[in-house]
Amino acid sequence: MRKISLLGSTGSIGVQTLEVLRQMPDYRVVALAAGQNVDLLLKQIAEFRPQIVSVARASDAEKIKKEFADPEVYFGAEGLSRAAAADGADTVLAAVVGTSCILPVIEAIKLRKNIALANKEVLAAAGEIIMPLVEKYGVKLLPVDSEHSAIMQACPPAVTPFGSFVYPVQSIRKLILTASGGAFRGLSPAQLASRKVADALRHPNWQMGRKVTIDSATLVNKGLEVIEARWLFGLPYEQIEVLIHPQSIIHSLVEYRDGAVLAQLGWPDMRLPIRHALTYPERLANELPSLDLLQIKNLTFQAPDWQNFRGLALAYEAGRAGGTMPAVYNAANEMAVALFSQDKIKFTDIPQLIESVMQKHKNISAPRPEDILAADDWARRMCPQEIAV
Amino acid sequence: MRKISLLGSTGSIGVQTLEVLRQMPDYRVVALAAGQNVDLLLKQIAEFRPQIVSVARASDAEKIKKEFADPEVYFGAEGLSRAAAADGADTVLAAVVGTSCILPVIEAIKLRKNIALANKEVLAAAGEIIMPLVEKYGVKLLPVDSEHSAIMQACPPAVTPFGSFVYPVQSIRKLILTASGGAFRGLSPAQLASRKVADALRHPNWQMGRKVTIDSATLVNKGLEVIEARWLFGLPYEQIEVLIHPQSIIHSLVEYRDGAVLAQLGWPDMRLPIRHALTYPERLANELPSLDLLQIKNLTFQAPDWQNFRGLALAYEAGRAGGTMPAVYNAANEMAVALFSQDKIKFTDIPQLIESVMQKHKNISAPRPEDILAADDWARRMCPQEIAV
Repeated sequence: MRKISLLGSTGSIGVQTLEVLRQMPDYRVVALAAGQNVDLLLKQIAEFRPQIVSVARASDAEKIKKEFADPEVYFGAEGLSRAAAADGADTVLAAVVGTSCILPVIEAIKLRKNIALANKEVLAAAGEIIMPLVEKYGVKLLPVDSEHSAIMQACPPAVTPFGSFVYPVQSIRKLILTASGGAFRGLSPAQLASRKVADALRHPNWQMGRKVTIDSATLVNKGLEVIEARWLFGLPYEQIEVLIHPQSIIHSLVEYRDGAVLAQLGWPDMRLPIRHALTYPERLANELPSLDLLQIKNLTFQAPDWQNFRGLALAYEAGRAGGTMPAVYNAANEMAVALFSQDKIKFTDIPQLIESVMQKHKNISAPRPEDILAADDWARRMCPQEIAV
Repeated sequence: MRKISLLGSTGSIGVQTLEVLRQMPDYRVVALAAGQNVDLLLKQIAEFRPQIVSVARASDAEKIKKEFADPEVYFGAEGLSRAAAADGADTVLAAVVGTSCILPVIEAIKLRKNIALANKEVLAAAGEIIMPLVEKYGVKLLPVDSEHSAIMQACPPAVTPFGSFVYPVQSIRKLILTASGGAFRGLSPAQLASRKVADALRHPNWQMGRKVTIDSATLVNKGLEVIEARWLFGLPYEQIEVLIHPQSIIHSLVEYRDGAVLAQLGWPDMRLPIRHALTYPERLANELPSLDLLQIKNLTFQAPDWQNFRGLALAYEAGRAGGTMPAVYNAANEMAVALFSQDKIKFTDIPQLIESVMQKHKNISAPRPEDILAADDWARRMCPQEIAV
């Protein structure tokens, strides 16, 4: 029996995680944390009967207490931490979007729980802090992300005597993260400038949450994944490449130093990496249809358009700068996407805004968690000022 | 220091193996066995200084003795066995084409030497005998073949307490062997019937020996690989598929039962699987250029043409029949290719001849090595009779 604490149960990854868990009788959900989608959360509580529940607002917590007598119900940042620390949970699946996930994940690591990580910010903004803790407390950090899951499968880690993963970095020439190129692949600067949020949400291959779909159109999503890969797999940025692969069938590749390339392929379906993270090192049989390369017929590859999708290059810059800069990259992007969603800036303003905020940031090296959160907060406040100029 | 006995040193695989070994100072060649290319063998002896040398003919053995005082020189079937049994060799790389390799490989296994297998007949004709010996004597059987090497890399084996490999068969839905389709992919029956040996030798991707290149054009090469895969990886024929992939970049794929597909990619270069077999479980750095998917741009896939390349279906039939039938399939093909090379039969007669010989064969189940060799001999003798009818 494995016990799971699920942070972000009503989001896209959370819902698919519960779909996967529904078919795995050996797994129990001991905690569910959600935001404001209480209607869905109530149904999830009725079905999965967790011991701990957390929501964003106190009023929603009260609502849940009226419906269910059993679970402990919490709310806000403390609630999220309580869910992450849930007694008996051996794995915390972190699918809450945003930096609010960082402290709960750190607490879970200190309680020696394995982390199945769908949240991007934990590593993209705080990888420098997280990875030494992962090693120190000997926990397993399992990616719930098609690209990183593909890389983990293409270069299976060994387990240290303390229990964390170690990848065969000495044997690897490079990691190649594939990217569909998003909704706007191949567009000119003029075309990009006139694109609205509804256009950005038409992703060709993946059904994902709103923010990540826009990030996919700017390639910032891939940029965040590059930073995550640097921390997860312990390879420098020079050995992490991005390849546009419009069909999203090859989920990423590892090139070894002998010239062999290992890749993981599959339909674009998040249930695959979710299941891999939850069942590792086993692979459980399931109902997913076989990949049919005869149906796909063609796999194609292009170089990223670094000019028009400058958000990707900025990720490498932020990553190489290290310290609090990746957190600023991430936070400025999040604000820029919000401003674009509100039609306050153009699509092409997103990378410009990130860059101008990064340029103003006084980087802090060897940051503590509070430095990361302060930089995040600072970058968010800078964004409206920058566009007001 | 690893010590290698190389059977078939002057053939295509042998020459490339020595090219690879030249760059690996920790490896020593203790035995070289060749056929009739004595000029090349003399140069190889001068460079690699083996303890044991073997050639096909007694007269060539005398010639070598005159040039070199050091090595023990043998010839014929006994010579090949002596090279396979060479004192101190921990790995025998078997790259001699044909059934003459079967008994020497069996002897090497009994001497607990690991086998790096480039020869197809050992498993295709005698897999039913070989695999129990591999397990009993606890040796490692390493494929030197781009497809099987790819599969081994995509589902890395565990090692049994006795020292042989065991693959994660319970986790696998199927193995997918890729095939370029050879020189005649897409041709009509009328076009195929008029094709000559020179046409068949124009392989689009791989530089290989003459016989294997013709086998590639008939898909019999892939058929033999299907039978080999059944024995190497221990999966039934129902779980082994063939996919036409004209670019020969994806060298084969493994579909796991959770829906994930792992694949090994690379330039079509035999030095890659040779090196993998010799250095396993390490991956040594080398000069092979990185695979460049931007240069390739497109990977395409087609179903095999079962009708016009019936040699492939016959492999499944022979494999499922088991016993001595795979040996008959292999031997009849070898004769058919020889007759085609002499312009005595048409290209399209090759599978017909194999099939008619298979139909006449009285299959022997649970064969001994001598049954395999007798069936091989019988099938060869049948071929001229069949075309004389």
